[in-house]
Amino acid sequence: MKFLDTYTKSIEQELSNVEFPDAPQNLYNPLRYFLEIGGKRIRPILTLMGAELFGLKSHVVINQAVSVELFHNFSLIHDDIMDEAPLRRGKETIHQKWNQNIGILSGDVLLIRAYQSLSSGADNHLADLLTVFNNTAIEVCEGQQMDMDFEDRSDVSIQEYIEMIRLKTSVLLGCALEFGAIMANASEIDRRNLYNFGQLIGVAFQIQDDILDLYADPDKFGKQVGGDVIANKKTILFLTAIEKSTAEQIKRLENLSLEKDSSLKVAGVRDLFNELEVKAHCESVMKDYFDRAMLALEAVQVTSDRKKSLTELANYLIQRDI
Amino acid sequence: MKFLDTYTKSIEQELSNVEFPDAPQNLYNPLRYFLEIGGKRIRPILTLMGAELFGLKSHVVINQAVSVELFHNFSLIHDDIMDEAPLRRGKETIHQKWNQNIGILSGDVLLIRAYQSLSSGADNHLADLLTVFNNTAIEVCEGQQMDMDFEDRSDVSIQEYIEMIRLKTSVLLGCALEFGAIMANASEIDRRNLYNFGQLIGVAFQIQDDILDLYADPDKFGKQVGGDVIANKKTILFLTAIEKSTAEQIKRLENLSLEKDSSLKVAGVRDLFNELEVKAHCESVMKDYFDRAMLALEAVQVTSDRKKSLTELANYLIQRDI
Repeated sequence: MKFLDTYTKSIEQELSNVEFPDAPQNLYNPLRYFLEIGGKRIRPILTLMGAELFGLKSHVVINQAVSVELFHNFSLIHDDIMDEAPLRRGKETIHQKWNQNIGILSGDVLLIRAYQSLSSGADNHLADLLTVFNNTAIEVCEGQQMDMDFEDRSDVSIQEYIEMIRLKTSVLLGCALEFGAIMANASEIDRRNLYNFGQLIGVAFQIQDDILDLYADPDKFGKQVGGDVIANKKTILFLTAIEKSTAEQIKRLENLSLEKDSSLKVAGVRDLFNELEVKAHCESVMKDYFDRAMLALEAVQVTSDRKKSLTELANYLIQRDI
Repeated sequence: MKFLDTYTKSIEQELSNVEFPDAPQNLYNPLRYFLEIGGKRIRPILTLMGAELFGLKSHVVINQAVSVELFHNFSLIHDDIMDEAPLRRGKETIHQKWNQNIGILSGDVLLIRAYQSLSSGADNHLADLLTVFNNTAIEVCEGQQMDMDFEDRSDVSIQEYIEMIRLKTSVLLGCALEFGAIMANASEIDRRNLYNFGQLIGVAFQIQDDILDLYADPDKFGKQVGGDVIANKKTILFLTAIEKSTAEQIKRLENLSLEKDSSLKVAGVRDLFNELEVKAHCESVMKDYFDRAMLALEAVQVTSDRKKSLTELANYLIQRDI
């Protein structure tokens, strides 16, 4: 995806220009460090693309794009504390490298900085941007709470799971795109359709992520295949299996969850999922979200050549070759 | 302070109207609980008074007043985690009653809700309100970080300490007042003077708080006299004592910090402080801030009868009978 590289570069450039005061060092050094860890920067890129979709130059919305990325990083910093994650993209998390209090407080500051960046150059769009941002930010927190609640529950439905990933990860993609649309003076209905495109692609992406955990080509996959299985995570694969299982199969799944040998565990779970045709089922759910996303994008009232790069990005996100 | 009761009632009324969704319960029940713990609600009252100072009816700024209180409660929830405080106003803190993750996340949501409330009815004042709010919110976090840093330092100066309390506790009083002034279309210079009044009164109040910890009338004081001494807190009394002490007196202070018997410890420290005339010195510093606050209020370009209630409140806050 060559055109992504150009966007990524301009976002990285802009993020490296984000200035933090020298003091208190224990507040700002962690933030400098965390923003340098990097990432795909998909969210801010969506804001740039959302603006360009309606003919607005991307540099006009750069502060709103940065705002989305700062918010995303705030949520990662706090989630890492809650998940007790020692690493993020192979680097120590803030609470691990400094301490938990610094993680909480530097995250708080980053959330406020996201609001500052959002306001910068927003002109008469400020109220609209804020409404979308506030609603989205709250939903992301609600999704994180649902995710934590699910850990202690054994009766999570697929529908609830999809609602959780919609809130925790997908609404921010919709929000990022809508920021661009708002700045470009897009109509309410175009804004809504573009938001929905982002949100639905986000759900499809997350389902694909769950599928790849177990079914990716190990040579191409960046991380350990079956990591979710080993950690007994309630992914959509797992919840689908539960829903399709007989009592005997559920018993097998329970036994497998206790299996200490990772290879045996992953192989056993994969066998059971294959019997239940879990992969095909999840792929059809994913495809449904993907198709609905593309319908939402089609509904946006701009010429179709303008939509080419977003279509390309959508396919890239769910790793479909087109 | 009878007129305060009227304000407090209208704030309490409005806070009880703040609606939270039913789900996720683990996110919203803690917030309902925390807002009911209560407090003096001084900050939102300042917003109402700031508006009235310029002739604007207080109900017009009620959402901005609530915003300040929500922000204040967000910062309390996160500070309580960082300070590992089990109680707040005699009630269990959120991280104590639920758990730490819920404390982090519900605090995050409350910060976002503060932004929502700030925007509500802000009309063409939104950008100004946000600028003041963002700057203040960041300063409050910086103050909290300084406070945490001070715990590990033995070379904190009085000047640094005052800067810490200015950021951690006082700028929000200025911000609260300025919200009212902004909504009332006050001039830039009036806004600045009113902000400074709030900020300077905040510093005076915090110094008074440190003094009262050791020198309050035990019959009138709500908490244990000498609590800061027992906890070896670096208050302005302590820092003043260090600055005025001979090597021999510093040795005495060090020995007293290790004293296990609370009564002996408090009495010993009080004796030493008396020798060094610490109380009189701190009172003069406090009075200096109070006087500068009153000068800032005087400079605000409205008739002096309009300033009566703020003058009364300022004296009430530093517990001076007038």
